[in-house]
Amino acid sequence: MGDLILTTFDWVPEPPRGFVRDLRVRWALEEAGLSYRVATVPFEDRRPEHFAHQPFGQVPWLTDGQLSIFETGAILLHLGGLSDTLLPNDPDARSTTVQWVFAALNSVEAAVQPWILYKFTGDTTQTPGRQLMDTFIAGRLKHMETVLGDREWLGRSFSVADILMADVLRVTDMFDGLAEHPVCRAYVARATTRPSFIKAHGDQLAHFAAADAARAR
Amino acid sequence: MGDLILTTFDWVPEPPRGFVRDLRVRWALEEAGLSYRVATVPFEDRRPEHFAHQPFGQVPWLTDGQLSIFETGAILLHLGGLSDTLLPNDPDARSTTVQWVFAALNSVEAAVQPWILYKFTGDTTQTPGRQLMDTFIAGRLKHMETVLGDREWLGRSFSVADILMADVLRVTDMFDGLAEHPVCRAYVARATTRPSFIKAHGDQLAHFAAADAARAR
Repeated sequence: MGDLILTTFDWVPEPPRGFVRDLRVRWALEEAGLSYRVATVPFEDRRPEHFAHQPFGQVPWLTDGQLSIFETGAILLHLGGLSDTLLPNDPDARSTTVQWVFAALNSVEAAVQPWILYKFTGDTTQTPGRQLMDTFIAGRLKHMETVLGDREWLGRSFSVADILMADVLRVTDMFDGLAEHPVCRAYVARATTRPSFIKAHGDQLAHFAAADAARAR
Repeated sequence: MGDLILTTFDWVPEPPRGFVRDLRVRWALEEAGLSYRVATVPFEDRRPEHFAHQPFGQVPWLTDGQLSIFETGAILLHLGGLSDTLLPNDPDARSTTVQWVFAALNSVEAAVQPWILYKFTGDTTQTPGRQLMDTFIAGRLKHMETVLGDREWLGRSFSVADILMADVLRVTDMFDGLAEHPVCRAYVARATTRPSFIKAHGDQLAHFAAADAARAR
């Protein structure tokens, strides 16, 4: 393992603060007790060096020595490899965790993300496409309500899969998408009262607040 | 490694044929030269045994001996572990492949999927949310056009990441989403002329054709 460096934006506007995806990585690093430092790239002027690390011009990415990794799913699996607490070693338990990592991103977030775009714009026009999208997220949340009804965490213990799933459901909740899903909401509350989440969330807010202060100078 | 069993639906209507996600798993199995058999679950009457393997009531899932795995991303990483040809052993090359597996599913498919829901319903109403969604997919395709401009495959050689990315872009192309993205289109053509894709695609079509024939009897 080399030095761990997490790269995020130097500044973002107010709305996404507390939800920028470096949070997922900070959270995992805190859970694992791994030391790291934070580096930044310009939010407003995205340069070729940025795209060389993150081809979609987003954040975060993580460097571990010579290795540079983008996509929070891939970063969290990598950190899982550095810590038994985030990704179990036992093959069965590991497989369960990995499948829930993908489920959080490809089954649940894929349905949540377009729904959020609509919420974000305040668009309430009902059209056939919109209706299909609402059915899409409703189905996924219904099934998650069942899944989470009989367990504390997705696997035998808290893992990288819970960091991703809880973060996806947290943003759903922020746009009031969990009003009829008390089990999902309780899961989000369980995850986000962990000291590592509170630390990661506070650190992200402090990072962007410091950026405001630097700009005001 | 145990016996590999891929479970898919016993039947589906015409439109998704050739695009049901068991294709991604068939393709990987063919690339790796792994032997497997296909099992089915009812499409129309999804039972608790189905949800026990796939909590969202979808397909596919893969069993490898006692292990049962859902999510095509997780299944393909598992198969990658059984075959050097699909997921390189070298840590750097492996990390590149894993991040592109996530990019295919969480950065590209996440933008493609809602766009397809609209295409599927024929909904052309322009609303603010719809506009944001169109911007979302346009951005991702623009960046993929750049990424694929300087390489044959996402990593040093064809891998599970290409199976997922090519399949996501293939369905985009089917709805005419690649008209202005010739590099992405050429990549899809390169991937889908591989003998393993042709075999997997033909096998899926044959599977559902046999189901029609059985129903007609």
